[in-house]
Amino acid sequence: MQHRDKDQTDNSFNPTNVSRVKREHQRGAYDKETVFGILDAAPFCHVGYTIENRPYVTPTLHWREGERIYWHGSSASRMLRQVKTGVPVCVTASLFDGYVLARSAFHHSANYRAVMAFGTAHMIEDRDEKEQSLKVMMDQLWPGRWEELRPMYEQELKATTVVAMDIEEASAKTRSGPPVDDEEDYDLPIWAGVEPIVHGTGTLETDPRMLPGVPLPDYLK
Amino acid sequence: MQHRDKDQTDNSFNPTNVSRVKREHQRGAYDKETVFGILDAAPFCHVGYTIENRPYVTPTLHWREGERIYWHGSSASRMLRQVKTGVPVCVTASLFDGYVLARSAFHHSANYRAVMAFGTAHMIEDRDEKEQSLKVMMDQLWPGRWEELRPMYEQELKATTVVAMDIEEASAKTRSGPPVDDEEDYDLPIWAGVEPIVHGTGTLETDPRMLPGVPLPDYLK
Repeated sequence: MQHRDKDQTDNSFNPTNVSRVKREHQRGAYDKETVFGILDAAPFCHVGYTIENRPYVTPTLHWREGERIYWHGSSASRMLRQVKTGVPVCVTASLFDGYVLARSAFHHSANYRAVMAFGTAHMIEDRDEKEQSLKVMMDQLWPGRWEELRPMYEQELKATTVVAMDIEEASAKTRSGPPVDDEEDYDLPIWAGVEPIVHGTGTLETDPRMLPGVPLPDYLK
Repeated sequence: MQHRDKDQTDNSFNPTNVSRVKREHQRGAYDKETVFGILDAAPFCHVGYTIENRPYVTPTLHWREGERIYWHGSSASRMLRQVKTGVPVCVTASLFDGYVLARSAFHHSANYRAVMAFGTAHMIEDRDEKEQSLKVMMDQLWPGRWEELRPMYEQELKATTVVAMDIEEASAKTRSGPPVDDEEDYDLPIWAGVEPIVHGTGTLETDPRMLPGVPLPDYLK
């Protein structure tokens, strides 16, 4: 990966000391395909920010367009009030894929896909740009739903803060596959393998107050 | 909840401005049963810390004993090197339970359970205490497995850093149930409800190099 450090391309982030994967560096990647793939696969992220030298980590839904990560919430939110002022932010998106059971405690591990993305957050101030970004979020989750909904009131738009962070640098770190044991330990009669953790969509729970006869939208089938 | 602020009890954390839930405060809780329940249900957490005024958020497996949260990793890890020096840390554990689809974009939401726990991390220096804490982690995941494994080498124990954080304050924030729409919007013929996200254990993947005839341990059945 050394060439990536020297020659940033359109296909890869350029790691500095901030984002370079140090421990188990062979698990690290900086190419945008890997970074964006994990960001898009994770339904939510954790946003890290600092207030008076104290770290805070807030979980939130996010979405992405190009090299920009968005999240949103109430204009009254402490996190959004803080990060919209142009402070450094770390956005971490993680998918936990399973426990890795080795023949020694030391080689137990986890399978996972994670991205740490660094940048400076700023608030989307422009009314139309804010509305458009919220539509993009919904289109990515449920294509066509935006147009079906009761349109947004102006005061709702005002009460919503959308924050964007252009990714300045990012790293992915992943592990997959079976345990890697010390060679001599493979002879031990100990159960070894992966206990996968799976994530999926459960049975839809229709709102008890929904009008009768409303068909299930295609994007939920 | 006001009384909790005045009279901390053994059953509840005492929120200050750091941990008090501000936005949607009715979703907040500070009682230890709720906080510990979420910490224990989440298989991993996100640790937030600050290096040179820049926030970092690292995902990691964690475990808990009483009011102490533990995590571990390689002694070479940047995160562990940083947090073991007695700096303020935020540990956030989150479970995403589903998307909440309302009749207006504004009332879309998420069902989730999350804890933000604040404290100061420190490294477990004592050899026996470190080994014992690793055993506790494994006992919580797979009772009895520790005794089946090839015993830990001293150099493995040395190469492992265990970090502990006594919870100074913590808050839980949760949402569950159907969407809450504006009263007049319930008459609209729009699909509304919850799209649950479920997490579970998948089919075990036995290590291809496992010795033949090793029985499946009870703790994996």
